[in-house]
Amino acid sequence: MKRAVFTTPQEAETAFYEAFEKSDLDAMMGVWADDDEIVCVHPGGPRLSGIEQIREAWRRMFAAGPTLRFKLREPHAMNGMTVVVHSVYEQISAGGDSPRQPIIATNVYMRTESGWRMIVHHASPAPAAPESDGKRGPKTLH
Amino acid sequence: MKRAVFTTPQEAETAFYEAFEKSDLDAMMGVWADDDEIVCVHPGGPRLSGIEQIREAWRRMFAAGPTLRFKLREPHAMNGMTVVVHSVYEQISAGGDSPRQPIIATNVYMRTESGWRMIVHHASPAPAAPESDGKRGPKTLH
Repeated sequence: MKRAVFTTPQEAETAFYEAFEKSDLDAMMGVWADDDEIVCVHPGGPRLSGIEQIREAWRRMFAAGPTLRFKLREPHAMNGMTVVVHSVYEQISAGGDSPRQPIIATNVYMRTESGWRMIVHHASPAPAAPESDGKRGPKTLH
Repeated sequence: MKRAVFTTPQEAETAFYEAFEKSDLDAMMGVWADDDEIVCVHPGGPRLSGIEQIREAWRRMFAAGPTLRFKLREPHAMNGMTVVVHSVYEQISAGGDSPRQPIIATNVYMRTESGWRMIVHHASPAPAAPESDGKRGPKTLH
């Protein structure tokens, strides 16, 4: 399969969420770097590392889950020369349901020989009111 | 105050966890880049961004909390030229208590004019058995 080449980290991020919304496993895996060190953490889940573990988790998620819709809020970007970090709030909804608890995602992209690819997706639930005045959420484990 | 200069990302990471264990706010903030885009997510908490929000959260955490001890497990590193990503499991204990639920942390460092500095700390609770064979944890929100 011919893989897409992303010329910017933003193109890779757009493709990531499009593949997520379409439950398109090939498109999703085309976004990731083919590397043993890549890391994916789904909300509440374990750390998955390497292309095989990460593919298998997406495969099962796409097979089992409902179609999701994403709105991204409050994007932050921190740009290195070959590695770029995006931080976003994901507002997710499924079908006609009301939006779920927001998710905080750290998405990291690396410039490879075949364009920009995702190397980290770390997602975790945000407390209900992310736009608070800096007060801590109801439950902090640190 | 004279700030430490970290010549490698690993030095910055070591200083981060030492400052965390000592509840040393000045040392902690000396690890972070002085930038509006930096991001810190404590487990279960909101996304904090910019040096002021991040400092205030550490200040309150250090003032309120017990002394913590960290063991880091299963480190992964993804190295760009000016940005480096570390992924670790934090095994945390407080005083004589038994270890708490493990935390998955994504730590990102950037090479600045004054050495390597932290730009992202995203920490979230791992399920109880992180060394599973890739099975998803008991609760995934995606």
